[in-house]
Parts: sequence; C-alpha cells; structure tokens
Amino acid sequence: MSVLDRLMGSLDSVKSGIVKSRSVRRADRLAQVLRTLISEKGEATGAALARRSLLLYGGLDEEGRRHFFELLARDFSPDPDAVLAAAQSYHRDPSPSNLSRLQRVTEPPRQEVFRRMNMAPGGTATLVGLRLALLNELKASPLLEVVDQDLRHLLGSWFNRGFLELRRIDWRTPAAILEKLITYEAVHEIQGFPDLKRRLERDRRCFAFFHPALQDEPLIFVEVAFTNELPSEVAPILSMDSAVGDPKRAKCAVFYSITSCQEGLKGISFGNFLIKQVAADLHAELPNLRTFATLSPIPGLRRWVEKIVDQPQRWLDQAPRIALKNWLANPVAAPEPGTQLFLASLAARYLTREWDHGHILDPVARFHLGNGSRLERINWGADKSPKGIKQSFGLMVNYVYDLDDVERNHEDYVNKHHVVCSSAVERQAASVPIGAAEQTPAAASSAA
Amino acid sequence: MSVLDRLMGSLDSVKSGIVKSRSVRRADRLAQVLRTLISEKGEATGAALARRSLLLYGGLDEEGRRHFFELLARDFSPDPDAVLAAAQSYHRDPSPSNLSRLQRVTEPPRQEVFRRMNMAPGGTATLVGLRLALLNELKASPLLEVVDQDLRHLLGSWFNRGFLELRRIDWRTPAAILEKLITYEAVHEIQGFPDLKRRLERDRRCFAFFHPALQDEPLIFVEVAFTNELPSEVAPILSMDSAVGDPKRAKCAVFYSITSCQEGLKGISFGNFLIKQVAADLHAELPNLRTFATLSPIPGLRRWVEKIVDQPQRWLDQAPRIALKNWLANPVAAPEPGTQLFLASLAARYLTREWDHGHILDPVARFHLGNGSRLERINWGADKSPKGIKQSFGLMVNYVYDLDDVERNHEDYVNKHHVVCSSAVERQAASVPIGAAEQTPAAASSAA
Amino acid sequence: MSVLDRLMGSLDSVKSGIVKSRSVRRADRLAQVLRTLISEKGEATGAALARRSLLLYGGLDEEGRRHFFELLARDFSPDPDAVLAAAQSYHRDPSPSNLSRLQRVTEPPRQEVFRRMNMAPGGTATLVGLRLALLNELKASPLLEVVDQDLRHLLGSWFNRGFLELRRIDWRTPAAILEKLITYEAVHEIQGFPDLKRRLERDRRCFAFFHPALQDEPLIFVEVAFTNELPSEVAPILSMDSAVGDPKRAKCAVFYSITSCQEGLKGISFGNFLIKQVAADLHAELPNLRTFATLSPIPGLRRWVEKIVDQPQRWLDQAPRIALKNWLANPVAAPEPGTQLFLASLAARYLTREWDHGHILDPVARFHLGNGSRLERINWGADKSPKGIKQSFGLMVNYVYDLDDVERNHEDYVNKHHVVCSSAVERQAASVPIGAAEQTPAAASSAA
Amino acid sequence: MSVLDRLMGSLDSVKSGIVKSRSVRRADRLAQVLRTLISEKGEATGAALARRSLLLYGGLDEEGRRHFFELLARDFSPDPDAVLAAAQSYHRDPSPSNLSRLQRVTEPPRQEVFRRMNMAPGGTATLVGLRLALLNELKASPLLEVVDQDLRHLLGSWFNRGFLELRRIDWRTPAAILEKLITYEAVHEIQGFPDLKRRLERDRRCFAFFHPALQDEPLIFVEVAFTNELPSEVAPILSMDSAVGDPKRAKCAVFYSITSCQEGLKGISFGNFLIKQVAADLHAELPNLRTFATLSPIPGLRRWVEKIVDQPQRWLDQAPRIALKNWLANPVAAPEPGTQLFLASLAARYLTREWDHGHILDPVARFHLGNGSRLERINWGADKSPKGIKQSFGLMVNYVYDLDDVERNHEDYVNKHHVVCSSAVERQAASVPIGAAEQTPAAASSAA
Repeated sequence: MSVLDRLMGSLDSVKSGIVKSRSVRRADRLAQVLRTLISEKGEATGAALARRSLLLYGGLDEEGRRHFFELLARDFSPDPDAVLAAAQSYHRDPSPSNLSRLQRVTEPPRQEVFRRMNMAPGGTATLVGLRLALLNELKASPLLEVVDQDLRHLLGSWFNRGFLELRRIDWRTPAAILEKLITYEAVHEIQGFPDLKRRLERDRRCFAFFHPALQDEPLIFVEVAFTNELPSEVAPILSMDSAVGDPKRAKCAVFYSITSCQEGLKGISFGNFLIKQVAADLHAELPNLRTFATLSPIPGLRRWVEKIVDQPQRWLDQAPRIALKNWLANPVAAPEPGTQLFLASLAARYLTREWDHGHILDPVARFHLGNGSRLERINWGADKSPKGIKQSFGLMVNYVYDLDDVERNHEDYVNKHHVVCSSAVERQAASVPIGAAEQTPAAASSAA
Repeated sequence: MSVLDRLMGSLDSVKSGIVKSRSVRRADRLAQVLRTLISEKGEATGAALARRSLLLYGGLDEEGRRHFFELLARDFSPDPDAVLAAAQSYHRDPSPSNLSRLQRVTEPPRQEVFRRMNMAPGGTATLVGLRLALLNELKASPLLEVVDQDLRHLLGSWFNRGFLELRRIDWRTPAAILEKLITYEAVHEIQGFPDLKRRLERDRRCFAFFHPALQDEPLIFVEVAFTNELPSEVAPILSMDSAVGDPKRAKCAVFYSITSCQEGLKGISFGNFLIKQVAADLHAELPNLRTFATLSPIPGLRRWVEKIVDQPQRWLDQAPRIALKNWLANPVAAPEPGTQLFLASLAARYLTREWDHGHILDPVARFHLGNGSRLERINWGADKSPKGIKQSFGLMVNYVYDLDDVERNHEDYVNKHHVVCSSAVERQAASVPIGAAEQTPAAASSAA
Repeated sequence: MSVLDRLMGSLDSVKSGIVKSRSVRRADRLAQVLRTLISEKGEATGAALARRSLLLYGGLDEEGRRHFFELLARDFSPDPDAVLAAAQSYHRDPSPSNLSRLQRVTEPPRQEVFRRMNMAPGGTATLVGLRLALLNELKASPLLEVVDQDLRHLLGSWFNRGFLELRRIDWRTPAAILEKLITYEAVHEIQGFPDLKRRLERDRRCFAFFHPALQDEPLIFVEVAFTNELPSEVAPILSMDSAVGDPKRAKCAVFYSITSCQEGLKGISFGNFLIKQVAADLHAELPNLRTFATLSPIPGLRRWVEKIVDQPQRWLDQAPRIALKNWLANPVAAPEPGTQLFLASLAARYLTREWDHGHILDPVARFHLGNGSRLERINWGADKSPKGIKQSFGLMVNYVYDLDDVERNHEDYVNKHHVVCSSAVERQAASVPIGAAEQTPAAASSAA
Repeated sequence: MSVLDRLMGSLDSVKSGIVKSRSVRRADRLAQVLRTLISEKGEATGAALARRSLLLYGGLDEEGRRHFFELLARDFSPDPDAVLAAAQSYHRDPSPSNLSRLQRVTEPPRQEVFRRMNMAPGGTATLVGLRLALLNELKASPLLEVVDQDLRHLLGSWFNRGFLELRRIDWRTPAAILEKLITYEAVHEIQGFPDLKRRLERDRRCFAFFHPALQDEPLIFVEVAFTNELPSEVAPILSMDSAVGDPKRAKCAVFYSITSCQEGLKGISFGNFLIKQVAADLHAELPNLRTFATLSPIPGLRRWVEKIVDQPQRWLDQAPRIALKNWLANPVAAPEPGTQLFLASLAARYLTREWDHGHILDPVARFHLGNGSRLERINWGADKSPKGIKQSFGLMVNYVYDLDDVERNHEDYVNKHHVVCSSAVERQAASVPIGAAEQTPAAASSAA
C-alpha cells in the first residue's frame, strides 16, 4: 500500500465521519478472512487462512475485539427469511432433505467460523480465550449473547467427557502444571510450592481433567484428604505441619477443594463427572475407604442471614430475630454457644429450604445436591479464616457421596425439590421459627 | 420376570400380531434409556446411563440395529410445529432469545443422544462403528439419511483438524498399529510385516493422523518415498529388495499411497491436511527435497474409455475410435507404441476436461486437483499389476504439490473450472479428436 | 602422507619380512590410541579419544580384530614384577595403601581400556559385539582367554541385576523389538509376526530384561502360557489356531521357552532372576495361578542314550540294552509302549543321576535344578517336531518352581548333589538296570 | 526369645566383657548374610538374600554402621598368603589361568558383596548412601580407606559416562526433581521455585546427568545463561526481574553454576563431560553462540592472600605487602581503585602460578583448567554477596571453553604445568612482586 493510498484511505474515513482505529480495521480484515474461510468450496487453503485468522485475532486490542464480536453477532447469524422458508418446508414435509436444509440455514455461520479457526495450531486455546473476552463484554452488550450461545454450544461438544483425560497430580507432575494449580485454586488458597507439596503427600490426592488440545492446562481439579472420620474443621487438613497418614488405614476420603480453572469454559460442567470418577477410582484402589464426603464452604450464608434478619414478616417469633440482629450489629470475638447453635440451625434452613428457580440458593449446595449427594452435617468453627468468618460465620458443611444413592437423591432433588439430609440437619432446619420462602420450589421449577 | 409373565407377554405380542425379537426389544429398551439420558434435568446419572446405553447397543444384532436406527430417525427428529413457531418468532424478531430457542428446537435430539453416548468409556469408537453400520443400512432405507446427517455433523466437529495428532510411523511403532496399516492399505497392498518394514526404511516415510479418543487407530496415513527424480513407475518404489537410499541426497518426495482407514468417518476429509502438513514438515527437515509429488492411480480411466468409445457422436474423427474399440475387444499382451500414446492422450483428456457436477470425474484427480496440485505427467507402464492394468491400462499420473501455488491452483480449479497442468499434458489432452462433454463445468457448478 | 613416505613404509615392512595389511595397521593405531586414552592424567580429551577408538575398531576386519585382541592380551596385562613386589608388600603389611597399590598393579590395564571405550556413544553395544568376536577367536587362540576374563568381569558388573529393566512384551511393543524376538527365539521357532501375535494374546505372557545402554535390545526373554493343568505336550501351546483362554481362570503358568539373546554376554546369567521375578509378578497379578512350571526340552538325552547303550559294563542286565540298541539301529515310526516307558525311565535316570563336575549333565536340567526347581514329570510324545524327536525322542519334562521351596531345593542340589523330584520320577529312575556313573557327584564336586 | 534367654545372653556378654548393642548385633548378622551371599555356589537365592541385606543395613544406627564397616575392612579383604602365592605363580608363568587366579584372590571379597547388594531393588541408591556414611567415618578411622577404595572403584565403573543420561531441565520437569536442584545448588543459592523458574526461562538453560538406577536423582547439573558478551558480574544473571532475552540473538553461553549432587559419589568426576557435552549441544542448536565460558568463583583466594601476606620471605618488595596487610586488618566498605587492581593481580597470580602436587591450588581453577579451558578475565566486583566478599573480595573469573583448543590447553596444563590464559591475565600475574612458590609444579608432579 503506497503512502498516497493510505492517505486517501484516511481521507475517506474522515469524510465518512468515522476514523477507524488500526485495531478496528484489523477486526474488519479478520471478519473478511473468516468469510472467505467458510465460503471456500474446497478446503485447499483452509489451514493457511485459519492460521492467518488467529494471528489477526491475536493482534486485536479491547476495542478491536469488541468490534469483531459485534461483526460476529451481526453478520454471521442465520438469515430469518431463509430460516422461515426452510421451517415451512420442513413443516409441510419433514423429509431428510428438508431437515438437512433446515439445519443448514438455522445453524449460525459463526459456528463454522469457530470450527475453522480451531483447525490452526493453538486454535482451541484461542477460542477458549476468545470466549473469556466475550463474557467480559456481555454485560455491556447483551446482543453479543448470540455469539456466546454458539461458542458455548461448540465448546460443550468439544469438551465432552469422552474427550477428557483424568490425570493424577502429584509431586512428579511438571512444575508448569503445579504452578497453575497454585494460581487457579479458588477455595483454600495455596501458599506456594511447599504448601502444595503437603497437599500431594500420600495421605492426600489431587486429580484433574485435561483436554488433549490444551496441553498442560488443567480444566478442573479436586483435592482429597484421607482422614479417620468425617472432618468438622478444615485447618487440620490444610496444615503444612501435620503428620502424614497411611492411606491404607483411612476411613474417609474428603473432597475439600474443587476448582474450575478455565473461565472461558464457564457453564460447561465437569465437576460432577470428576467427583464421581475419583470416588469410584479411590474406592477401587483403597477398599478401606468407607465414606466419600466433602468439607464445603457455604458462600452465601451471611448474605442470606443479613437479608432475612430484616424481613420481620417471615419470622414466626421476633425475639430470636432481634437477638440475632443485635449480635450482627455488635460483632463479638466468639459468639455464645446459644448463638452458635442458632446460626447452625439457620444454615440448615438455608441449605435445605431456600429455593430459587428450582435450585437451592447457595451455589455450592446447588452443585453438590444436584450431583446427588446427601447433606450430612453442619460444622461450627470449621473455617476460622477471615474469608470463612466473613462469608459464613466460619461454618462449613459435609456433603456425603454414597454412589449407590446418588441417582435417587438426585431425582428427589430435581423432581420433588426435596433435599436429602441427615435427621440431625432436618431437625436443625425445622427448629428455626421462620416461614416458607416467598417462592415455593414447585412454582420456581415450573417457571424455569 | 416369572415364567407366567413371560408367557403372557408373548401372548400379548402374538395377539397384536407382532412378536418382537430379543434384539428388537433390546433396541426399544436402548431408545428408552436414551430418552432418559437426554431428558435428565441434571447430569447426576449421565455417566452410568451412557455406559448402559453402550452396553445395550453392543448387544444388538443387525435386525436390532436397523430397528434402533429407525427409532432414531422417527422419534428423535425436531418437532415440525415447534420448528415453525420458533422460525416465525425469529423472523419477527431475531433476538438472542429467539435465536436460542430456534437453535434448540431445530437441533434433532439425536445429536444430544450421541453427545451423551460419547461420555462413556469407548463412546467415540462405538459411534464411529455405529455410523459404519448406519451407512450399510442407508441404501436400503434412505429415510435413515437424517440420522446420518447428525452423526456426520458431530463427527466432523469432533474430528476437527485441531484435535488430530500427526504421528510418524516407523519400525519402532507398536506392532498393533503397524498391523492396522497392513490391513487398511488400499492403494498398493502390503504383503505382511517384511514388506511394511521396507516401506519404513530411512528412504521412506509414513505419517498418520490419530485422534486422542481412538487410541492406536490411524484415521488416514500417507506413504512417501524419497527419489532422485519424479518417478514414472511404481514397481521400483514397492520393491522389497531395492537398495536403501540416503534421504539427505534425495530430490523428490513421492506420495505413492494415501489411505483413509475409518469407513465410519466417510465424508470427513483429512487427506488435504495430511499431505500439506507432511510436505511442509519434510521440507523443513530435508531442505534437499525440491519436488513434492504423487504417483497416483487413475481408477476410472478404463471405465470412461469403454464408455466414450461407444459414443460416436462425441468423436470428431471415427477412425481412432474404431481402432481403439477393436483394440479393447482384442486384448493383446502389449499394445503398440501408437496405441500407448493414444491412451496416454485419452488419459490427459479424461483428467483435465471431463467434469461432473463441478468436479473432475476421476475421484483421485478430483482429490488432488481440489487440493491445489498441478497435473504434471502421465506415465505409461507405470503400474503393471493386474489391478493397474484393469483399471487404467497400467497408466499412472504425477500430481505436483508446489506449496507456493496450491492456493492459486485451487482457486482456478474451483472458481474457473480450470485444471492446472504441464504443457505436455495440455498438448496430449488437446490432441484427442473428441468434443466437449455434454455438461459444461460451469453448468455443473451452478447446479451443485 | 606422501606417496614416497608410503612407499618407504612399505619397503621397511618388506625388509622386516612383515607386510602389514591396512586393517592390521589400523589395529596398531587403535592400540596406540587406547594407550593414550588410559595414560591421560586428566580426562579432558577422554570423550573424543573414546569416540575415535570406536571408529577405528569398527573399521577392523577379521584379521585386524585378531591382531588387536593379541595386542590386548600381550601389551595390556599386569606387569609380573610389579605384581610380585606389590604382593610382597601387602604380605608384609596389609595396609590400605599397600592394598591399593596391589589392586592397581594387578588389574589388567585392559579393564580401564574397556571402561574408557564405554564412555563414547554406542560404547556398550560395541563392547558386547567385541566380546562376541573374541569368543569366536578363543578356540583358535586360547591365550586370548585373558582378554575374555576381563571383558566378562566388566560386563558382569555392568549388567548387574540392579541395572536391568524387566519389561512386558505385548502386541503394543515396537515392531523393532518384536522382530528381534523372532530372530533370537532358540527353543520353539517363531514363524513370523502372526505366530508371535498368538504368543502375545491375553492367555500368554512374554517378558524380557533390557539394559538402559542397549536400547531396543532384549537380553533374555521368557514366554509363558496359562493353562488349566500341567501340560504334557507343547503343540497345543504353540498352535496359532487355539482358542484364547481367560487368564483369570487359569491354574498353571507354563514357562515354555526361555532364550538368551546376546551371545556377547555369554556366561552372564539372567535366567534365574527372570523366571523368579516373572513368577512372583504373575502370582501377585493373578492369584488364581497355583502352579509355576516349565515344559522343557532334554537336549542331551539321545546323545547320552546312544553313548550308554555301547557301554555294557554299566548295565546290570544286558537284555534291555540289546533291545534298545536294536531299536536305535532300526528307527520305527512309533515305538511300542514298552519302549516308550523304558525311554522315559532312561530320561529320569539321565536327569537325576548323571553328574558331571558337580552338575547334572543335561544343560537345561542343570539350569532349572540349579535354580531350585523340582523335576516333576517326564512326558512322552511331548514334542513331535523333527528337532524334538532328534534330540530327545520327543520327550519333554516339567520343572516346577515352588517359590517357597527353591532355596531348600537349590541347597540340596548344590551341597548334597541331590536332585529333588517327584516320587514318580524317582521310581522311573530307580527302575533302570544300570550302575552309577563312573564319576560320583561328590568326587566331581571336589574336583571343581 | 524368652525373657530368661535374653537375660542369660546378657550375662554371657557381660562375662565376656562385651555387651553388644542391638545395632551392633544386627551388623554382625548382616556380615553373616553377606558371607552367605557371596559364598553361594549357585545364585538361586541371591535376590532374596540381597533384599534381606538391604533391610538389615537400613536398620543400622551410626554405631552399627561403624561396626559393619570395620567388619568389611577386616573380614572381606584379600588373604595375604593367597595373594603372595598367586603373584609368585603369575611371576613364574603369566598364563591365563595364573592371571585369572591372581585376579580372583586379589579382588577384595567386599567388591562381590557390593555387586550382590546392588541386585536388590534400591540397591544402587543404598550403596551411594552407604559410601556417604563411610566417608563420614573415614577421618576418624583411616583403616576404613580399604572399603572406600572398593566402593569408589565399583561406583566409578557403574557410573561410567556411557551409562549416564543427559537431560534438559525446564519448567516442565517434575517438581520432585526441581526441588532437588533447589536443595543441592552449591554455588548461587536458589531462593525457592520462583527463583528457579527464572533460571529456566528461554534465555537460560539447565542440564543434568542422571543414572537409570537412580530415578529422579540428578548427579550433577549445570546452569547456563545466554548473554551478549562475556559477563563481568553475576548479579544481572541471577536477578529474577531481568527481561527474558532471545536465545537466537545471544553471543555467549555462560556456565554460571555447576553443582555435584551426590556426596556419596565424591571423587567420581562428571563435570568435564557435562560441560563439553552441553557446549557441543548448544553449539549445534544455536549457531549464533560464539563464546562458551564460565563466570566462576575463586573460593580459596582470600585464604591464600591472608597466608601470603604473612610470608615476608616470598615478597620482592615489602611495601605492597604491608599496605595489603593493613587493608586486610581494617576492612573498609569499598577498597580504593589501586587496591582493587592489586587484588585482581594477586588473583591472577594465585590462579596461574600457585601449584600444589601438580595442580593449581584453587579447586575451581583446577577443575576448569584441567578440563582444558583458558583463563580469560578476572572481574572486580563480580559477586558482591557476603559469601563472594568473604571468599574472594567479590572477584570472579571467566574460563573460556574453546572446543578446538581444550585438548592442547589440557596437555599444556597437565604435561607442561602451564596455565593457558589471556595476555591481560598474564600481565596481571607478572606484575605481582612475589617469588615462586616453594614447591615447583614439576617437583610436585613427580611426587604425585
């Protein structure tokens, strides 16, 4: 491009009132490459074009990416006229060829764009990163939702359980992977390599799912401790100085941390598979293990308590509400035993009867109960870290995975909106003098 | 089930006039499991159900499979009413939510069925096998085409180039894989391990694509020989007794055999990627290589010659036609030089000007020309094996891959319906006294 | 070197009556390099010199090698004067420094030569090959024995069990290794890859020892078949068409072939370790296995029978001797049952009471009995191959490895010269009317 | 053992005046097992006995080990009478059989003990640990030297360069190995994983030798930095915050740290091989590298300066000596430029002309000069760490490895006792007004 050409181009832009930035022009060029990429009648140059598209995408800044996403939303959606015509034909005659045409015209061309981009080296990693960037734009630009639907659909298909590899993580694992666990860990922070090393000793286990196209990138990982009994406190598990136990004598496998690593894969669920696979494998390796359970946080407890304490109408008895309100207003180092019991009962209530759109409100409870676990025990003083105090007064909970029962528990949860729990938790939940939530689970469910 | 129950069941079947076989009943049960599998609101029991479905499918005989495929075609297609309603909404307002709903109701539930089946161990291999079984049913039951569309779509997405691994095959490769090459080889039969060993010496190369979910199963492989010049005959390349050459002194890399291994992946193309990747890799490893070319069969030549010889109207001069017809009727051991030249010219004609629906008629030519190669030379007496004589009078052809030109060649072929070839081949093709094919390439293309 | 120099050199050689061949001169040069290699006060150039020595050795022909071995024997032996002086000092005062000096002057400099040669890439393989070449010279030149002593000593130390790796061989093993098994197999010939494949199915096992410095080179391998009972015939085990059994239901693990691969490692024993390690590993993997036994040839039986039949003085009864002599002279297709029984008894006699220098005469018996196995059963018609008939009238024998007893059996064999065998074999051996061998085991032992 | 028995045993011990501790008795038992292990005529029970011996050794405490070493020294040495007789025979007639006998009786039975112990799993690691324990005893018990001679001999043979594997260490290396580098690093301490990570970036390299029998145990490792010029300071190389450079543009590969890891392998040299191999490999990989050099400490400099300053008789001029003495007595933060130059000249002198028993006094200089490197430059202020100031006033030195010259340099060093250095260093060394060391290198050499 000569200097003159470039000057004229600039003038054109100025005349049209829009001076596009370099990155936005790169986004336009990228969209053009992608149109060629998917319009090719053959595939002869697909690999080269795919590589070029990744390079161009990699060169975009935030503004360029936003522009590119908008192009994807606007120019790579199905044509409404063609869709309607194909739907009418299919409605008249659901023949293979009509169905084939329907499929072809309703699938957004974006999907083929992403499939083609994936063909270049590093394509999958780029698309996972692209989705992360897209998610960050989504709040400001809800119309980009259509792009995300396609990406989520494709990534969901590509990261199908059948393509994932379960790997044990131990001290012989490459440091490059261990470093990522340290970075990603979201439940109980890992304080560097020596801390991680203790979590990989022989009375601990760590497993992660990997995808063959994302080398050295864990998708999700779970940390397990072997203990003699269902644990009521997390500090002994996290302590770096504890004696290393004998896995062959342990009774209980405790899933004390589970972390999803790739924000770009948000909404694609691996955790359920991971926990059950690990439980089944450990059961086969160590027949001495009798109980498979978690020691889990209750991330939404305090927020819910602080809300409910200001809703007198839900309380059958105002005295405990006012006492609670006073206690919340005057944080004392250690609450009295009575307050402790009451908070534990509130937690039982929160975890078993507070529904939202067909799911239990608390996100961690929702995950484990949806997987078919049983809510076994609520533990006072289980997590005394500032974070633990802040989100749940230091309370934690054990969910028990009994592989023979998960199917039934899951169905109770999904179909009957019933949380399976121990009788102790049941009693705690029943003891709280507040009425049902405004929205019944059934109503919630039918609205879902 | 008691004996009485079974008896009553049989009576019911008899009364309704249909006694279902055990395998057909298993297919019904399988369909039922799959309905549950995809109706699950959660995923709690997905892994177990998926495993069960693979077991049930594995137990079907041919009749059971046919019945199962019919159920898939009939019961797992999109609902025409829902499709029409969603299309109308999207036509009125192409909002994200309307697009999302459109996608959801037009995607055949079969696709989710296959994605779920894939979650069980061995799922991918089962689905590739299932597609092969389906292809075998397709001719007799064209309505099953809808099932195949979905499977092909999914497998195409899953076997995306980005997920394939290119591996070099040599004498250190596990015997289990080498044995499969011997079994699959479709161009020049491999006569057991010693034959294969010669094809893996240091003046030869073999590469294959693998997919992580199909361990030890090559998808496609290519065999390469290093030579000093563009070869005109295949026998020296296949000879087990030839001296092993020095790869660092070779001038030419000859792709003399390329075989797709998985019939269940029919229609999903890997060959284009494989050849270009291998050419690029060899170019980097051995800068002494100047020419990347094939020595390829012309599988449809004789069939076409035998047809054209009976179409007097296409001939501008009947004398050579009649001479050819006589020669074809009286097979002589070795044709005269004049006949040889004439057959070579006919081959040039056949490979450059006989179009069918926008593609050159010959399937091998179609593949290489579509990839952007150049038709370089037609070789008489190149394949004297019975198969070679039978399909193409022993003629073979060199296609040259010049990586700098493939893009332009490809576009000439696809857009201008022009076969890029050497001037020698051009002259040969022009020398044949017959007129253009009935269907012009342009017409063909617009009909595609 | 100028033409003139070379001419003068030739004249010198002629004058001295010796015209050395090119290879012999290369051997001289090699010896010179090796002297430098071990005389170096530092190690700075060791790696380069070691590489040069391997190159020079590789260029020697048979004559050159012979000359080189003679130089090694003559010029790299300990100096008798220095040895005597050091021995006298040590005798006077066995101090550390005197012992150190004694060690230094009695170790032949050859050993350091071999250690230095080993430092170059491929050194170990070269030295194993060098020993093979040396063994071939040994009969003609017994003085080279001193060189072999040193090589055997070093190789024995380097191929110490602690450095060997036991690997399972199966159909996923690289073809390059499988091909070597086919080549090396010494007991029951393997007829190509399909035959080997049957021997690697799941009702068979194959294990080999490898050394890290000899990549892809098995040192010794054993083939195992899983059967329901102690086998009396080898043909069913070798049959390629037999049904594949379930290893979890087998009762017996039969070691039916054991082959040492490297002639250059002759005299360095791995077999004992291999059999016991494999038996222990299989026992742990498959608790259903009750019996670990061989089905072994009796390679020296016919030779011994033909000798003994001509020694009337050893027979207490001449009638059976003469009958046997007649039968041997008139080979009939199938011997009568009486002859069969008699031959089996002779075999029992041969395997339990014919000693030679403290060992049982038969080399296979010597190996297994020395390992502590029990001679369990002699099987008529067990190996009907020409080789089997030729060496042992088709007889084979089962040695049983009972891991709890091998230590005691071994001590009985070594210290009491008693062969542990079943009572049936004991009876057979006792029934033969011949006297004790000329040499008693005790005498043999004390002469050893 | 009953209480009474034990009491009686104690009484016996008391009576004999020796009450052996439990560990000493275990050492006796171990020696007994080892006698059996090497006396076995066969090998049938070798593996079991070897395992038992490792167990017994593992159970010894310091006292038990000392006793065991004494037994090894006393009871497993060659018999002086047998040695003398064999030496006399060999002196009379140096035949193969006499040489064989000589070898047999002069080799201490300890060597066979160690070879047999090595056969058990973990044997090699145990023997390396045993040697370390032995080295710790050696100062107090010089008679144990005979045991060490044998161990060093065997380990030297087993850890022959031909059996070592060179591996690149990077961030994908198992954490278990990286942790060991952090522990072992002896030159420039590694401050945990993040520090090590910087040393493994792409403008750095790390290589280690491993032995197949010591999994995950580096024997020696070298750290390399790529720089633009010969470095005069170590801090920029060690800085964790420095920008990562492009290895393809570097001019210089700096070996800035080399550490031997296994104290139990003391005296067995790998460093020479490692540096040259790494230099050759880097040269092949990155042709842009022109200089291969070290940045090395001068560990003995201050000690030598402090000694020489008190030897007036060696000085030709007392003024600088007295000035130096004063400066040493009154440490000032930063010495004046004049003092700096003088100290650098003293270092040049120290590194080129101070010999001890045929070697340069400084251990690091001895290593690199013995390897054939050239002393290139002395750098003031190169290592300002407390350790660097303390041992060498912060001075460091570059040794250059020019692979074409190492052989000649090495020979100059070893045979002519001449240190090859740059003319600048030569001038510095010559400028110091002190006379030759008392002991000339030649004298030292002849005394060695």
